[in-house]
Parts: sequence; structure tokens; C-alpha cells
Amino acid sequence: MRIAFAEAEAAAQRGEVPVGAVVADASGNVIARAGNRTLELKDPTAHAEMLVIREAAKVLGSERLTGCDLHVTLEPCAMCAGAISFARIRRLYFAAGDEKMGAVEHGACFFGLDTCHHAPDVYSGLGEEQAKALLRDFFRKRR
Amino acid sequence: MRIAFAEAEAAAQRGEVPVGAVVADASGNVIARAGNRTLELKDPTAHAEMLVIREAAKVLGSERLTGCDLHVTLEPCAMCAGAISFARIRRLYFAAGDEKMGAVEHGACFFGLDTCHHAPDVYSGLGEEQAKALLRDFFRKRR
Repeated sequence: MRIAFAEAEAAAQRGEVPVGAVVADASGNVIARAGNRTLELKDPTAHAEMLVIREAAKVLGSERLTGCDLHVTLEPCAMCAGAISFARIRRLYFAAGDEKMGAVEHGACFFGLDTCHHAPDVYSGLGEEQAKALLRDFFRKRR
Repeated sequence: MRIAFAEAEAAAQRGEVPVGAVVADASGNVIARAGNRTLELKDPTAHAEMLVIREAAKVLGSERLTGCDLHVTLEPCAMCAGAISFARIRRLYFAAGDEKMGAVEHGACFFGLDTCHHAPDVYSGLGEEQAKALLRDFFRKRR
């Protein structure tokens, strides 16, 4: 999660909403890391989770990341929750909850739906205050 | 939608689940077309809708496809519904509903949630039988 925060801070430096993510393999080795790049890439799908899943799939040469864990600084949205499910992520760790767009513990609560065919184990709250402060500072400076 | 079906048929020829999608601008000009390529690209996010949205964003040079319409042969899943919302798609047309994974008229019913901040107008059912037949034939041959 430390690396995910470094990626979130780097995203903020680029003027992107500060969210960072990491994929680690079953042994805990980091195989991909990414920050949000929607503005830079002009790509509405370029959330940190999407980029890190695509990168990890490339590294492993498989569209399934079975046994891998994803660490992200903010609760995933519906798009990212869907991708996490398709990628067969084993464990999802996220820092801050996202009442506005989250789809894990808010909104769709996607992993509990019948239309979700693989759900990771979910661990939330680790680093919550740090993640919230990062987002708060970012949006305060933009006003 | 005719082009979306051609993309779905091409996907089936490649051994991919046959789903195809098109993005058209406000005047109805096709600006991007794509079929599902999750296996070929080894990318769990490479659904037809995701690829076509990313391509259209590249063509327009913007992460927002304001005024554009998306035509797809199957009801979008949660991942794709999220991307459609972020991309500010104006109208979504889909052929067959998807009880198993759909997130528009099934499951999350994402566009009706408070955590969805832009919802397209949705038109479903046009070409439904053709889309269902395509999927049925594909899965029958794979057994």
C-alpha cells in the first residue's frame, strides 16, 4: 500500500485525481504499479486500477491474474470493480471508502451481486486517513 | 448497429465471445468500431465497449465523448457501464439483454444508482434475436 500511495502522490503532481494502485503476486512481489492518468492519456478508462490490471496481465501473459492481490488508495468504482472481478483478483485492499463513486461498499456493492461471478476477499480502511487527506488537499488546491 | 454486428461476427471468427460495438458522433458518423479481444490481447478489460470508447477518445482527443452514441450487440456489464458513464455517452443502444452479467437492466442497474453521475439514454432490443443467435451458435460450437 506504501507504493500505491507513492503512485497516488505522483498522480497529484501530474494534476490527476490522486489514486494509486499496485498488483502483487501470490508471494507478495509487486508486478505492476500505476496512478490515475485519465487526463494525460485522454482516456476515460485510465483509472489506476485499470492501468495496473492491464499492466499485470501483460507481465504475466494472461488475462487472468489468479492468486494476485490489488492494493488501491480509494474504493474502486463500478468500472474497476468489474475489471477486478474479470481479472480474478484474489484479495482487494483499499484505503479510503468512496461514498460518491464507490461500488464495493457503496452504490452497486458489485461483489455481492448475482451478476458478479468472481469476488475477491476485501480488506478496507488501512491508510484511510492518509488517502482522504491526499484527496482533500488535491481538491482544495484546485478550487 | 449493423457494423456492431459485423464486429461481433469478426470476434467470433477469432474465437472471442461475439460482442461488437460502435461509437458514432452526434451527426451519426462512425468514429470507432471494435469487437471483443480479451483473449487475443490477454487483457481482461478488452471488452468491445471498452476498446471502442478508448479508440473514440483517441480520435476525438478527449476523455469525454459528449454527444456521442454507443451501439453494442450485448447489454454492457458493470465495467463497461462505468466506462460509458465516465465517457459521457449520450445514447446507448444495445441488442440483447444479458441476465448473467448485464449491469444496465440487470444486476447493478448502474445508471439508476446515486453513484452514477452521468447516465445515457438507453434503447434496447433492436436486433435482439440476431445477437442472441450469434452468442448461442458460438457457445454451442465451443462445447
